[in-house]
Amino acid sequence: MEEIKEFFAKQDRFAKLLGFHIESIEEGSSTVSTTIKEEHLNGADVVHGGFLFSLADFAFAIASNSKNNLSLGISANIIFQKAKSGGKLFAKARELSDGKKIATYEVCISDEKDNTVATFIGTVYRKGINII
Amino acid sequence: MEEIKEFFAKQDRFAKLLGFHIESIEEGSSTVSTTIKEEHLNGADVVHGGFLFSLADFAFAIASNSKNNLSLGISANIIFQKAKSGGKLFAKARELSDGKKIATYEVCISDEKDNTVATFIGTVYRKGINII
Amino acid sequence: MEEIKEFFAKQDRFAKLLGFHIESIEEGSSTVSTTIKEEHLNGADVVHGGFLFSLADFAFAIASNSKNNLSLGISANIIFQKAKSGGKLFAKARELSDGKKIATYEVCISDEKDNTVATFIGTVYRKGINII
Amino acid sequence: MEEIKEFFAKQDRFAKLLGFHIESIEEGSSTVSTTIKEEHLNGADVVHGGFLFSLADFAFAIASNSKNNLSLGISANIIFQKAKSGGKLFAKARELSDGKKIATYEVCISDEKDNTVATFIGTVYRKGINII
Repeated sequence: MEEIKEFFAKQDRFAKLLGFHIESIEEGSSTVSTTIKEEHLNGADVVHGGFLFSLADFAFAIASNSKNNLSLGISANIIFQKAKSGGKLFAKARELSDGKKIATYEVCISDEKDNTVATFIGTVYRKGINII
Repeated sequence: MEEIKEFFAKQDRFAKLLGFHIESIEEGSSTVSTTIKEEHLNGADVVHGGFLFSLADFAFAIASNSKNNLSLGISANIIFQKAKSGGKLFAKARELSDGKKIATYEVCISDEKDNTVATFIGTVYRKGINII
Repeated sequence: MEEIKEFFAKQDRFAKLLGFHIESIEEGSSTVSTTIKEEHLNGADVVHGGFLFSLADFAFAIASNSKNNLSLGISANIIFQKAKSGGKLFAKARELSDGKKIATYEVCISDEKDNTVATFIGTVYRKGINII
Repeated sequence: MEEIKEFFAKQDRFAKLLGFHIESIEEGSSTVSTTIKEEHLNGADVVHGGFLFSLADFAFAIASNSKNNLSLGISANIIFQKAKSGGKLFAKARELSDGKKIATYEVCISDEKDNTVATFIGTVYRKGINII
């Protein structure tokens, strides 16, 4: 598990660019955190929907790959519930279902006061090969 | 319309960070382009789902705000259809429906050979106030 | 609340056609049940995705209208997690976020053994008028 | 193809219950029609979201199984664009992408005047076995 965490921390260059930090990884779940900076804001001066999606997607990737079975996202749905302009964000992914080939995960993004900021549901296809 | 284009080009700092370029804007539609760089890749060496979503979301924001009625994303769904590791991407947004308060848009992301890379559908809430 | 329950039980003719029963209604949540019959199966001899969606959508409608503020569904996402050919199903809806105009709900469909069958997330637009 | 059409027309009991008619089937696409009856309405006197989803899901099932490779829905997203209380509806499904294991389809539901009523995107998992 620690190796998978390291793999993502090192290899996911987009997560590095956006300043995402892996807090924890367990079988089928993960927590990721980040801090909103000015460069993550959109034209309306709130954090970009793409930034929130990326954060959720990263937690989703870690949780879905935590069993060392390469899992690729095939679709995802996100609901934007609260506009934020700064502060820290946490994304917690948990497994909703786990099949041989298809698995689904829910990710909740919350702020420091535990207000829900966005909810994400994603589906992966399991390739059946090891990641590391 | 030109002013709205300039507004987004200047004010959307996240789009700047990711290197998104507004190709065109029309009433209810838009085209945005970008070039995949190494910093946009995930652990599996393909472009991050969050990068694709962000590109679609930017085209969606421009198209949905093109009528100068502030429109905020409330939910979106994305399907990942083709893994890409480099090259140019285009996101084309078009209006599916336009109500007084709620409107929906579809965004197709394609590569240079016009292969579909991802399909996005998003819904906005219209605030009823001007952007510029 | 009891009047809203009665309103849905009487007025939702599609829910009647499909044999949906309102178990409970609270502010922002609801539970609905049904029994799978042969007429609810698809060509693969499992319960039709449309039947599962309809069940979730009914729980969603009741939960989102429980505050007597007319709320219309604008979009929904469903994930099919377990194929069922018979038995009883329960759909439990809970509020994820509640804005003046936009609110979101999650519905979990489970079977008698509490296995998750499908997960649904839906968004409503609040009209600001009473139902009853 | 004609055999697959017959298979769905005979075997999908839920489609029969709701009065869905297969207009056409081609490789990767299909058209289904129906007429809204009183028993398809919800408490707000408009056609139930579950009825619209079921119609789209049926067109999706036919299009995705048109190549005689058993394909099961794993997730779907629907956007409700126009409320209808009666009249005829048409659902047209087309393939967005076709992989060995995963494929995606879009379904547009329209009325007799070709107004869009709802838009649906669904993903299937291909089992790799024949239907008939």
